[in-house]
Amino acid sequence: MNNFDNEKLNRIRHTMAHVLAYAVKQIFDDVKFGIGPVIEDGFYYDFDLPRSLVPEDLNLVEEKMKDIIKKGYQVQHETVSFDEARRIFSNQPYKLELIDELEQNEENTTVSIYKIGDFVDLCKGLHVSSLDELNPKAFKLMNISGAYWKGDAENPMLQRIYGTAWESVDELKAYILKIEEASKRDHRTIGAKLDLFSSSPKIGQGLILWHPKGAMVRLLLERFSQTAHILNGYNWVYTPHIGRGELWEISGHLQYYRDTMYSPIEVDSEQYYLKPMNCPFHIMIYNSSLRSYKDLPIRYAEFGTVYRYELSGTLQGLTRVRGLTQDDAHIICTPEQVHTEIINVLKFSLYILKSFGLEDFKAYIATKPGKKAIGDDKDWEIATESLKNAVREMGLEYEIDEGGGAFYGPKIDIKLKDALGREWQCSTIQYDFNLPKRFNMTYIGPDGEKHTPMMVHRALFGAVERFFAMLIEHYNGDFPLWYAPVQIGIVPVGSIHYEYCRELSKKLKTLGLRVNLDLSDDKMRAKIRKMEMERIPLILVIGDREAREGGISVRSRKEGDLGFMTLNELLDRIKPELDKGIPQYIMD
Amino acid sequence: MNNFDNEKLNRIRHTMAHVLAYAVKQIFDDVKFGIGPVIEDGFYYDFDLPRSLVPEDLNLVEEKMKDIIKKGYQVQHETVSFDEARRIFSNQPYKLELIDELEQNEENTTVSIYKIGDFVDLCKGLHVSSLDELNPKAFKLMNISGAYWKGDAENPMLQRIYGTAWESVDELKAYILKIEEASKRDHRTIGAKLDLFSSSPKIGQGLILWHPKGAMVRLLLERFSQTAHILNGYNWVYTPHIGRGELWEISGHLQYYRDTMYSPIEVDSEQYYLKPMNCPFHIMIYNSSLRSYKDLPIRYAEFGTVYRYELSGTLQGLTRVRGLTQDDAHIICTPEQVHTEIINVLKFSLYILKSFGLEDFKAYIATKPGKKAIGDDKDWEIATESLKNAVREMGLEYEIDEGGGAFYGPKIDIKLKDALGREWQCSTIQYDFNLPKRFNMTYIGPDGEKHTPMMVHRALFGAVERFFAMLIEHYNGDFPLWYAPVQIGIVPVGSIHYEYCRELSKKLKTLGLRVNLDLSDDKMRAKIRKMEMERIPLILVIGDREAREGGISVRSRKEGDLGFMTLNELLDRIKPELDKGIPQYIMD
Repeated sequence: MNNFDNEKLNRIRHTMAHVLAYAVKQIFDDVKFGIGPVIEDGFYYDFDLPRSLVPEDLNLVEEKMKDIIKKGYQVQHETVSFDEARRIFSNQPYKLELIDELEQNEENTTVSIYKIGDFVDLCKGLHVSSLDELNPKAFKLMNISGAYWKGDAENPMLQRIYGTAWESVDELKAYILKIEEASKRDHRTIGAKLDLFSSSPKIGQGLILWHPKGAMVRLLLERFSQTAHILNGYNWVYTPHIGRGELWEISGHLQYYRDTMYSPIEVDSEQYYLKPMNCPFHIMIYNSSLRSYKDLPIRYAEFGTVYRYELSGTLQGLTRVRGLTQDDAHIICTPEQVHTEIINVLKFSLYILKSFGLEDFKAYIATKPGKKAIGDDKDWEIATESLKNAVREMGLEYEIDEGGGAFYGPKIDIKLKDALGREWQCSTIQYDFNLPKRFNMTYIGPDGEKHTPMMVHRALFGAVERFFAMLIEHYNGDFPLWYAPVQIGIVPVGSIHYEYCRELSKKLKTLGLRVNLDLSDDKMRAKIRKMEMERIPLILVIGDREAREGGISVRSRKEGDLGFMTLNELLDRIKPELDKGIPQYIMD
Repeated sequence: MNNFDNEKLNRIRHTMAHVLAYAVKQIFDDVKFGIGPVIEDGFYYDFDLPRSLVPEDLNLVEEKMKDIIKKGYQVQHETVSFDEARRIFSNQPYKLELIDELEQNEENTTVSIYKIGDFVDLCKGLHVSSLDELNPKAFKLMNISGAYWKGDAENPMLQRIYGTAWESVDELKAYILKIEEASKRDHRTIGAKLDLFSSSPKIGQGLILWHPKGAMVRLLLERFSQTAHILNGYNWVYTPHIGRGELWEISGHLQYYRDTMYSPIEVDSEQYYLKPMNCPFHIMIYNSSLRSYKDLPIRYAEFGTVYRYELSGTLQGLTRVRGLTQDDAHIICTPEQVHTEIINVLKFSLYILKSFGLEDFKAYIATKPGKKAIGDDKDWEIATESLKNAVREMGLEYEIDEGGGAFYGPKIDIKLKDALGREWQCSTIQYDFNLPKRFNMTYIGPDGEKHTPMMVHRALFGAVERFFAMLIEHYNGDFPLWYAPVQIGIVPVGSIHYEYCRELSKKLKTLGLRVNLDLSDDKMRAKIRKMEMERIPLILVIGDREAREGGISVRSRKEGDLGFMTLNELLDRIKPELDKGIPQYIMD
């Protein structure tokens, strides 16, 4: 059972949120309250405060909360008229705004409020009946973050305090331990420790610098993906990162997607935009020639770096960024071909995920969104049904993500879990009812007439950034041999072994292996320790025997000490691991 | 001798420019004249006209010019006062502007004008003395283009007519033939014919769409380059395409380079800019850790796509674009290391050019520019001398490009020639006196103190776009086997051979070869013809004998018909050609 479904815990956490607000009120008399809901594993409350909170404030607030809980107040529910509610919350502008909204819904005739001691809050409940039901040792305030009122960047930025609460101290301790373990596996922690990537306030939020080791993994992922795409019938293309406003007007992005687009760039008195998606560019390549049904399907693939304006509060490591590179492709085909194409993409997608050792994923079928959807219901229905069939044909379980489709069509999303168990969308396979018509795409059918083709968008990694985050967390930084940034470390026992080590290093590099030869002044043990810290899968120690007999002594991170062997013996041994990096034909 | 140095031809062409203006005046009475200089192989004249010219207008203008020449007018030189000049050109605003400028120079006391018939032009000369010296059959108007008055986009756009003129009809014919031949080899012509790339007015000028075949060549160039860089001690990185204004202020780009930068993008009430260069990003990676002299040299390399606002009139195919991808690297090292690094880069650069079969290049040493240069003269002198030594050590001839350095340091440029013999800068190796200080880059020296490192920018292809243009023109589209977009075409004689062809195709693809199997309904001859048009290096024809005996019949574009052989025989035969695509260690 999910914690979130536990009603008792929900009541405890909801009341804790009120206690938190009450405690903050005792410290800052002029606080303006936002909202304070229950979330998975805890609760939060948003405050408009005269100064920025610092982590040290949390201790003081926790103490106040404990004092309040110990008073054992009853939690009293009342319903009042709108006018009465406005009187009670007369100096609480956010609450007044909520009351206005409640009143706009004709079903509401009164307002529900909850009282704890002399603290009153606008609230629908549910709560525990008395603070005696709260365990003052089984809660903890976790952290502070900024949050726009109603999540809208046009509104004021409030301060949000997150907390967790449980029935028993043991449950709290177990939760804190889990969080700490997860935090050690967090891609941000490992990324910093292994020097994989960074971001810089000078460059801007959500924009990633890939450091050499992270970039090496990315390069290997990209090559694998690129080769697999080409082998399986995709055409690689490259397109620009900006395009004229007209392009985005035709595509409908300026109409439907503008909030997520960066503001325009003025060029020759016209407006250009950073691309939030690659589709219009691939379509321009399609439209550059007259196409026949004999040319279809055409599959254009690209590592397309797109820029999306995500709210700064939502940005997170590599999982939510503003500049991201998709392994993006567009399949343009006839209506007769589309089902086979979708099956093939799904097959391809699972092949890619499994090639990187990922098996813990879940499929979602996202259906027609309530607002802004394009295309008639019948098209949506047929397409959604075809996606369900494809998922079933591949033997995958799936859930329905009701209303979660793009404005232009339904989709299959495949989500992976991060170290905290949160799901992130990676692969996506989407119908597009919109662009083929908007861009007047055609092909000449067997009847000699012009027809509008079908178009499928798809990304398998999704974004390289997020996929890399999943890999970091999945492997805890211990990447499989074939895409470890450095595969082999070489440690000479003494300086007389340098020459042999240099030759060995060159030989391995020429074989295409990634080698780190440490010729620094450090001691042998320190060198080995350093390479272990860097998670180098294989460490070769070279001393007198190795140099004399022309062999190597091998330590494997996975298998421990492998002892003395010849280079060829090692190469034979690792070949199956390395061969996992060779993409295969999977579509026949 | 360069045509441009031939005084007689210059006089002929200069007079032709006046005759052109005279002819245009006869057609458009209210023409406003810009300027009409001599250029290599010809002349042009800029006009402000009541309507846009069309190519058909050129015939009419040529006829008028012939009529004028046949009149045999004397070309009369006069000097007049500024006031008199203003009276003569009273309805010619551009000429009046030039007269004002002439007057501002105190050395000018009079204005020089030339008369032909009743046509007067402001002109310093020189000209032929009579139109009898012009051969009315030895000139031709070539084309029309737009050109801003004084090359400044703030000024009105004028219409420019280009012409060529020679002493004899034979010379003209030889020139036209040369131009036609070059035009056939022009990368724009071949690019369209082989469907390699395009641009689209919907996306914007100077932004390239790489179609599948062009993209395949790019992908192969990039992989070669990437592997060669990594093998030779570079660290690959990836960085964003935009950065905050602050970054570009620190770097000095907003101060020194703003004209070439795109206008800003508003993000979270701040200004971001598309990157015109990659340096600040590589520096941010360097600055993300404390560095020791033991870590140096550090060499960060990236395919960095940069955006530069080039004037629309200067844009040309792939050779001058607005979005370009550099094989960019920054070497950060100690002063003791810098000379060796530069020698190694130069060696690497020649290795790369030669790997793609390019040998016709020339080195230039670009020295301190007059304006805007950073750093003191002594630094410039030492650095320039070190570049000269490096070029000499590599046994290269070089020319001095006086004042052609970047504002931040001197450089070595290696230029390649296009089909018309025009030189284009590709490789560049540049000192940077500016950024290490501006970004406060440091390393801890053996003395335990902080020092400022040296930095060298370099690109070897230069821009992938331009390099590709050079390759297209150099090979006339017949790319070497290892980077031909499709290497092998397979043509079945009849449909009974399809199955054998499919297996053959799969076998070759699994070996990493790029294969085009034509199973269309076209006739065998038509298929072969089509593959020849597409410049596929090897065509395998599969009929009864081939299927029965398990062999292939091979046609090579380079070597003609090679007859029947086994697949292994073919593979052995092409191995040396394919091996050219394997990058080598070149730095020891």
